[in-house]
Amino acid sequence: MYEGAIQDLIDELGRLPGVGPKSAQRIAFHILSADPADVTRLATVLNRVKDQVRFCTTCYNVAESEQCRICRDPRRSDEFLCVVEEPKDVVAIERTGEFRGRYHVLGGAINPLEGIGPDNLKVRELMSRLGSGEVKELILATDPNTEGEATATYIALLVKPMGIDVTRLASGLPVGGDLEYADEITLGRAFEGRRAV
Amino acid sequence: MYEGAIQDLIDELGRLPGVGPKSAQRIAFHILSADPADVTRLATVLNRVKDQVRFCTTCYNVAESEQCRICRDPRRSDEFLCVVEEPKDVVAIERTGEFRGRYHVLGGAINPLEGIGPDNLKVRELMSRLGSGEVKELILATDPNTEGEATATYIALLVKPMGIDVTRLASGLPVGGDLEYADEITLGRAFEGRRAV
Repeated sequence: MYEGAIQDLIDELGRLPGVGPKSAQRIAFHILSADPADVTRLATVLNRVKDQVRFCTTCYNVAESEQCRICRDPRRSDEFLCVVEEPKDVVAIERTGEFRGRYHVLGGAINPLEGIGPDNLKVRELMSRLGSGEVKELILATDPNTEGEATATYIALLVKPMGIDVTRLASGLPVGGDLEYADEITLGRAFEGRRAV
Repeated sequence: MYEGAIQDLIDELGRLPGVGPKSAQRIAFHILSADPADVTRLATVLNRVKDQVRFCTTCYNVAESEQCRICRDPRRSDEFLCVVEEPKDVVAIERTGEFRGRYHVLGGAINPLEGIGPDNLKVRELMSRLGSGEVKELILATDPNTEGEATATYIALLVKPMGIDVTRLASGLPVGGDLEYADEITLGRAFEGRRAV
């Protein structure tokens, strides 16, 4: 619809996840009128991210060197290992400030419909990390959906015979939520997991 | 929250209009796992858009050369000139296939609250285009909101004494809409502009 470069930019932006044709157009016109220095910075960081960001060789979180910040931190406990699906889950858990152990990022969850099995995830790498015997508790923090539950169950079955405590994050009512609007599965889990006060 | 380049990318993306922190993160991780060629293409077009895209010296639409495609087209009528706010409005009208005249892009609408007056828009340039005497009808296609209406009224007052027909796009019920859900102003306008069948 537009001439040359601006249309190319709209097309490229439209390929990004969650960016529809209208937002792509809006962003493109924003860029057209933005400070050239801002645009150069965005273009530079786009190239840099592919060159510089690697995955930590220990936990497979995003990292800029051989190991990520968390794996390099000597103050963190090696006895607790938290298994998550994606690097963004590490950030979410770090934000709580509740966990001082290490992480292991699987890179997804088991999803037979999309052809993702344990071999496509960092499960073998997890097992060899556990082989060192330092880990006392393995916390399964995969998403509380079908794929995440299946992945947690699969890993639990593998790890339990090794004599390591395996735990799963609690399911229940979200804090600040409304009991009336909780779905029946969440409310059922909240009942199941009720605790003495 | 993340290390180095990926966090820089999330920050830069988050500055784009309509991209919140969650979408910025999602796009950043998409880019991290995307084909390097795709990322390079996006970075290149970002730089290119600032270098190559200019505004047409006649109508102020986006263009890659001195004049835009529409101003260069000899088959279009010089007798009809359609005034719009933004380049995207040109695209919207072109999509209808109803208009074969020329355009004039103001670059916005009069908005006193944001300090945008006629001097910040291409109004003077419009008047000098009309001076050539070729234009028979000036179609005011600014947005049907307060700012667009004010801009249309302002231009109409300036142009009418020149003996040029000044028209405004019809307001009324959107085709395919539901009368029941039309707001009262739109419905009022539809009554006001009713036509014999």
